[in-house]
Amino acid sequence: MSILDLSRVLSPRSVAIIGASRKEGSVGEAIFKNLLGADFQGVLYPVNPKAVSIGGVRCYVSITEIKDPIDLAILIVPAPTVPDVLRECARKGVPGVVVVSAGFKEVGGQGIELERQVREIARENNIALIGPNCLGFINTDPKVRLNASFAQRMPRKGNIAFVSQSGALCTAVLDFARGKGIGFSKFISMGNKAVANELDFLRALQDDPMTDVILMYVEDIVDGREFMDLSRHITGDAAKPKPIIAIKSGRTTQGAKASSSHTGSLAGSDDVYDALFLQSGVLRVETVEELFDCAVAFSQQPLPRGNRVAIVTNAGGPGIMATDAAIRHGLDLATLTPETEAQLSRDLPPTANIHNPVDVIGDARHDRYESAISAVIKDPNVDAVIVILTPQAMTNVREIGQVVANAAADMKKIPGAAKPILASFMGIVDVSAGVEILEAAGIPHFVFPEGAARALSQMYAYRKDWLDRPRTEVTKYKVDKAPVRRVIDHARADNRNYLPQIEAMEVFAAYGLPTLKSRMTKTEDEAAAIAKEFGYPVVLKIASPAIVHKLDAGGVILDIKNEAELRRAFQKIMDACTALVGKEKIWGIDVQQMSTKGVEVFLGAKRDPKFGPVLLFGLGGTFVEVLRDVSFRLAPIREWSTRAIIESSKVAKILHGYRGQPADIDKVAECIGRLSQLVVDFPEIAELDINPLSVYAAGKGAAALDGRIVLSDQPESKPQV
Amino acid sequence: MSILDLSRVLSPRSVAIIGASRKEGSVGEAIFKNLLGADFQGVLYPVNPKAVSIGGVRCYVSITEIKDPIDLAILIVPAPTVPDVLRECARKGVPGVVVVSAGFKEVGGQGIELERQVREIARENNIALIGPNCLGFINTDPKVRLNASFAQRMPRKGNIAFVSQSGALCTAVLDFARGKGIGFSKFISMGNKAVANELDFLRALQDDPMTDVILMYVEDIVDGREFMDLSRHITGDAAKPKPIIAIKSGRTTQGAKASSSHTGSLAGSDDVYDALFLQSGVLRVETVEELFDCAVAFSQQPLPRGNRVAIVTNAGGPGIMATDAAIRHGLDLATLTPETEAQLSRDLPPTANIHNPVDVIGDARHDRYESAISAVIKDPNVDAVIVILTPQAMTNVREIGQVVANAAADMKKIPGAAKPILASFMGIVDVSAGVEILEAAGIPHFVFPEGAARALSQMYAYRKDWLDRPRTEVTKYKVDKAPVRRVIDHARADNRNYLPQIEAMEVFAAYGLPTLKSRMTKTEDEAAAIAKEFGYPVVLKIASPAIVHKLDAGGVILDIKNEAELRRAFQKIMDACTALVGKEKIWGIDVQQMSTKGVEVFLGAKRDPKFGPVLLFGLGGTFVEVLRDVSFRLAPIREWSTRAIIESSKVAKILHGYRGQPADIDKVAECIGRLSQLVVDFPEIAELDINPLSVYAAGKGAAALDGRIVLSDQPESKPQV
Repeated sequence: MSILDLSRVLSPRSVAIIGASRKEGSVGEAIFKNLLGADFQGVLYPVNPKAVSIGGVRCYVSITEIKDPIDLAILIVPAPTVPDVLRECARKGVPGVVVVSAGFKEVGGQGIELERQVREIARENNIALIGPNCLGFINTDPKVRLNASFAQRMPRKGNIAFVSQSGALCTAVLDFARGKGIGFSKFISMGNKAVANELDFLRALQDDPMTDVILMYVEDIVDGREFMDLSRHITGDAAKPKPIIAIKSGRTTQGAKASSSHTGSLAGSDDVYDALFLQSGVLRVETVEELFDCAVAFSQQPLPRGNRVAIVTNAGGPGIMATDAAIRHGLDLATLTPETEAQLSRDLPPTANIHNPVDVIGDARHDRYESAISAVIKDPNVDAVIVILTPQAMTNVREIGQVVANAAADMKKIPGAAKPILASFMGIVDVSAGVEILEAAGIPHFVFPEGAARALSQMYAYRKDWLDRPRTEVTKYKVDKAPVRRVIDHARADNRNYLPQIEAMEVFAAYGLPTLKSRMTKTEDEAAAIAKEFGYPVVLKIASPAIVHKLDAGGVILDIKNEAELRRAFQKIMDACTALVGKEKIWGIDVQQMSTKGVEVFLGAKRDPKFGPVLLFGLGGTFVEVLRDVSFRLAPIREWSTRAIIESSKVAKILHGYRGQPADIDKVAECIGRLSQLVVDFPEIAELDINPLSVYAAGKGAAALDGRIVLSDQPESKPQV
Repeated sequence: MSILDLSRVLSPRSVAIIGASRKEGSVGEAIFKNLLGADFQGVLYPVNPKAVSIGGVRCYVSITEIKDPIDLAILIVPAPTVPDVLRECARKGVPGVVVVSAGFKEVGGQGIELERQVREIARENNIALIGPNCLGFINTDPKVRLNASFAQRMPRKGNIAFVSQSGALCTAVLDFARGKGIGFSKFISMGNKAVANELDFLRALQDDPMTDVILMYVEDIVDGREFMDLSRHITGDAAKPKPIIAIKSGRTTQGAKASSSHTGSLAGSDDVYDALFLQSGVLRVETVEELFDCAVAFSQQPLPRGNRVAIVTNAGGPGIMATDAAIRHGLDLATLTPETEAQLSRDLPPTANIHNPVDVIGDARHDRYESAISAVIKDPNVDAVIVILTPQAMTNVREIGQVVANAAADMKKIPGAAKPILASFMGIVDVSAGVEILEAAGIPHFVFPEGAARALSQMYAYRKDWLDRPRTEVTKYKVDKAPVRRVIDHARADNRNYLPQIEAMEVFAAYGLPTLKSRMTKTEDEAAAIAKEFGYPVVLKIASPAIVHKLDAGGVILDIKNEAELRRAFQKIMDACTALVGKEKIWGIDVQQMSTKGVEVFLGAKRDPKFGPVLLFGLGGTFVEVLRDVSFRLAPIREWSTRAIIESSKVAKILHGYRGQPADIDKVAECIGRLSQLVVDFPEIAELDINPLSVYAAGKGAAALDGRIVLSDQPESKPQV
């Protein structure tokens, strides 16, 4: 599939509106009216065989009748006629089409077939097609001014692009943004994504000079790998990175499936989206409020260099609330320098609080705010400023708004050292005059301080955890594929999908994952001989395809110290497991080296049907599913992400040497990298657990003490990644 | 301290305004203007020796000059003159005073002394005094209409009372509420709480017929025990319970202190507030938005009987977002009955989705909403309804608002079976006509569906976890106090605060907490004799006041199976610990019965300087502080709370028999009750850990495997609780 070029389509010089109408209340009338009303800078060509003119503009019988070249055709015709009209557009050589009409995939039945036809015609003729079943799009660029949508009013011009898979959300968001004074560069309803999808729009927006921040509402992502590559570039590696902030809905509708492995029951499909966004540098949020809180902050203010925030307030209580919110969101309260405090003490009345949060007191007017803001913003210990105002008797909100605006403008003059300023003028009505000034000046504003702290923390995280992260590659380890192939082929030949521990360990060992010596046997005598060879203490574990949770089945005995104990243990396991599943389902018993005690972590992998191999890491042990201290990443995993996934788990604190010496984190990172390579090389692996990987002291390595592998039902012939 | 009666003060018939002023811009002018402008139903008496009249109202030289009785005096005079004026009020026999003036405790220095005087005069004369340093209060009761505050406009009349410790927050909240159309019954700024505090206001509001929901913003609670008793009554046990929703700020400013016990490092003072609110039935929220989202829902709609929600929407995307939010907040999506779906299928067009979330499609007008709402609301599987609207071309928001209002009105006619209806008309401007109708009709409204789901889940939790909870008492166990007294006295005599494991176990045993047999010895031979008496396997543990984390110090060896192993272990521990802390700090080694494996839970207690004994419960084991799966409750704990604290921890899932048989939860609950009794009986206990309490299978009990107790620095002579 060739890459669509949407840039011309989104900024057309000439637009044909096929289905433009005079009929009051019709969609064809509404969209044409909106196009005319928005003062489009190019030429509009209404197409309607039954009308001479619409809104005073000469009408055409068909698109082919138009002599001039057409950059964009908007189709507002009944669904069944869309294929024919599309073919006409192809004949005319139209590069871009928006199909507003509904009645396709979303209605099922023959709508699906209709959509297939539309896709085919568009692809054959290299038409960049948006929709069907969409609300159109808006481009506020003053050189374009295109409102090809249902929306009666153009939104304000701004530097935020919004791309939505839900048309209805578009109408709500436009209305919300109007109420909040938020502007857009582009506003796009993707509809059914028959041809153009989020990838095409991201490509179009990445170099759009009008767009600084990209917002998305998606219900699915068509190609996770491609999305990741593209988003990583846009959000982190481009000459001028642009933040992408996204809502992915349907989080809870698909629960994690019941499964025979820990991994299977831990990884729901939505966790994979979490991982995808994380590794793409995309900030995932839950609500529309949060989407716009972040969008406004990212689009208007520089990113903070650190997390030390100064708060300037005219009231103690809200200052405490802001402090709570800042700390809750991972920010630090800046410790002001003695020089700053001396200056504050000179400039503010004696009752003011000159320590952070700086309280200029309820009767403060703009001069006090000016003194306080100018003092804290130049303090080297301050990375960002939150200005809080409560509307009290003496409060001149308009002037204080201007003071904040001036401070932010001064800041922007020092690009390298710029510090973000966010504001919360608390209330709605009495503060509105000040809020208007803030909005006009590009100061992110929040009704209560909580929103400011949250947005600021996300700006900080974007800089620290994404932009400033070390750029690393996927490490390629020297491994031995042959034993893995052999084990898998053997299982396939046996017509089974489940690889018991002993086979799993063979696979792990071939990929350099540390394992304990282990050998299976059917007899007590041989077990004794093996134990002697390995050296006591040893562990005995049942090997049976019918027993998944070995410990619960009485199939594991640890710390066997001598031959007598071994023989007793062997019989005990055999008796318990035979009683449980019958003799014929027991392959034997694994004799295993006993591990010394380490920190127990969990490593897992599963193959997502859509996004391919996914890795899991977290706290190990029996209760891994109860505690759910697990993080996810898509494989292949880069060096930096092997560290990031470890640090995102609570177990990191233990590995770093909580009340003791640090554990071998380097080895854990290496194991994650090797596991990644394994599941990428062998797409047959559907699910894989290593639980626990026992991690020893720094430099001493680790050992996979237990593990299992489940193969996919259908053998796949070659790797997909 | 006698109980203040604020009811007359808050609804006065006659008000003297001492410091009323003609001076433009003065507080004395503002407040008097506000009182006059609000159409007070009683008589106003301005007191100002320099004016004949203010605003056309006859002025008095002093309060004593007024012949009529005065219910309330408002003081707006310089702080240093307040004591004298207060004495005049006392002479006049004024029962209630609001001191608006600032310059007291909040400025430090002689302000503190001034506040002490004010408190003393008020108490001696039985004056119910509000403030000082407050913004006054507002009573919207049409029979009163008192605006004794800075606020220029009275808020709308409503059934929500707001009580705030921050005056500045009051101004912001009044403005916010005005913008949102939220009304109040009473609006109170508490100021410095020199006399009247949150307890007095709660007492006044509990029987106030105008108030259905109480909101609080507090920075501290003066008396936790009293607050709990009073709030439990108001929120749960009164004839007509009223929800209390609170913000307690300062959450993050006081971190947990470093400590030698798990409990000490786990329990910050703010966790105690969490426990206090939980056991008081008070809903604690973090932000002002959440406070009002809840307030509006609780004050306008009946509580749901269950958590099954039906969603009616005109757009798919927002329907999915609402579903996500509902599930995230612990609600269930209702499964509609076949009858309901049949009716929906009759009444809605074929493209509509008749399964929950019900999608009436983008071109729906009010008739379709009416059909859908009336069908789902009478479905027996539905406990609550969320109506979502996106403003599309055909959407008649006003009429749809009316349809929702009618449905809610119909519901309220069936008090027993009433189901709450909440709405999200998404957007701001285009939906405003509909939102106005919703507000007027008392339908809680949210800009996006998230807020509706969150508020609904909190209504459900209030009903299920609080109103409908079993009412239980504190169980009184038969215990033996004498050994505990002996152990504590012995430690005091030794001049030490730390009780090592063996002494802690003695204490636990005396209170019926299950322990393993254990005895301390200094010699290897005696250890062998003890082990023989107890029976192998045994455990050896170092006993030393200098070693807190025994395992890390090499002071613990488990699972000793015979005498040879015991002798080796004894020496190994002695060598390791002697090397670490020196021979003189080692008391000996505890020989202990070896526990069989159970579920390891953590039990703790600490004494909060303000609120007394607090209990902790959670997942036990080495990493308790890392995993922090710990809940808190104030002691004494009632039977039901011993269950609730267990269920609030992740470990509950394991105790209920995650992948195995259930553990002895009854015994755990009993242990929590006994521990509660212990720390209530002995206030000398400052911190206490039992980690782990190993819990065996149901009916098999539990055993405290390790524990420690820290005594307070100053012996206390008698229990405080």
